[in-house]
Amino acid sequence: MTITITAFEKSPDGGKGLARDTRVRWALEEVGQPYQVRYLSFQAMKEPAHLALQPFGQIPTYEEGDIALFETGAIVLHIAQTYAGLLPNDNTRARSISWMFAAVNTIEPPILELVTAKIFEGDKPWANERIPLVAERIRNRLTQLSNYLGDNEWLQGAFSAGDLMMVSVLLRLRPSAILNEFPNLAAYVARGEARPAYQRAFAAQYAANNP
Amino acid sequence: MTITITAFEKSPDGGKGLARDTRVRWALEEVGQPYQVRYLSFQAMKEPAHLALQPFGQIPTYEEGDIALFETGAIVLHIAQTYAGLLPNDNTRARSISWMFAAVNTIEPPILELVTAKIFEGDKPWANERIPLVAERIRNRLTQLSNYLGDNEWLQGAFSAGDLMMVSVLLRLRPSAILNEFPNLAAYVARGEARPAYQRAFAAQYAANNP
Repeated sequence: MTITITAFEKSPDGGKGLARDTRVRWALEEVGQPYQVRYLSFQAMKEPAHLALQPFGQIPTYEEGDIALFETGAIVLHIAQTYAGLLPNDNTRARSISWMFAAVNTIEPPILELVTAKIFEGDKPWANERIPLVAERIRNRLTQLSNYLGDNEWLQGAFSAGDLMMVSVLLRLRPSAILNEFPNLAAYVARGEARPAYQRAFAAQYAANNP
Repeated sequence: MTITITAFEKSPDGGKGLARDTRVRWALEEVGQPYQVRYLSFQAMKEPAHLALQPFGQIPTYEEGDIALFETGAIVLHIAQTYAGLLPNDNTRARSISWMFAAVNTIEPPILELVTAKIFEGDKPWANERIPLVAERIRNRLTQLSNYLGDNEWLQGAFSAGDLMMVSVLLRLRPSAILNEFPNLAAYVARGEARPAYQRAFAAQYAANNP
């Protein structure tokens, strides 16, 4: 059955790998499943055909036979629960999924708040005073994450979908210096980026954005 | 096997049902599974024993035999995938999980930003000018959600874990008037609250906070 995902026709980041289709590509590369990509303009993303699939007019989506999914976390989870390679088969399986939710619900929100504070509110009179407050909220979460990870290679035994999501979320911090304040987390992200499956996913989205 | 969850010894909301253990209690009531609660003080939540279970020092957690979970979304998903009653058994099963992620990753972040803007930054000089900006981000998302829901009773066929999470997230808007700007969403939340399983979950957390 053919897997088809959607991605930006032209990603706002120009191919830096921060658009969320990279996470789905990475998961598909980890489990060794080929996929097709339907590229969408910003206009096409707001049209009824796409909104029926993705109610918030975003990418990525995932179609496979009569299955039609949205939300990156749900798509990566579906891939991980359908194909072998991204979740352990022992009693830590469900806990690996806890890390997927922690990535998008505990770690990513303050990181996205920083993006909002800098990009969408960067010209507001409060920007200079407020940005450090948001950065401090990120540091609080990263301190807890760093303490938990310690010297371990991955969050929970072998590399899992939880690590895939967490590394992807932390990658958004690259433009700031915050990640480097936590050497074990910076090394963790680098280990994720070094995986051949990530390299293939990154190259594919880069090529699409830099024809 | 006994299910044990954790909850605040004294919830900051005094039992209004907004603490996240309510979502887990609701899921357990929907699938008809009994559970025990371990109540934690704010101090106990920051101690090593709890941090080994919940790396960010929060509630709820979920323990059942040798399974130990955190993150509300992951716990509700585990319950929904383990016991019957919260996910359809047809080709829309994975899409119901998309709605769970949409609740915590697309709808909840701007709602929590509003809480932060009002409570943690309410005394800042920018509060009055910034709060409407955040409210507008919520309205943008709710407009899309409202358009998708239309006149349907639930988001995707029968009531599912996706609705459980979405209703729970929207309940956080009650202190503001924003939810009532979208009559079909307000009615959707009211349908969720009217479910006997929600009523039992609410009553249990209320009783714990108002002994």
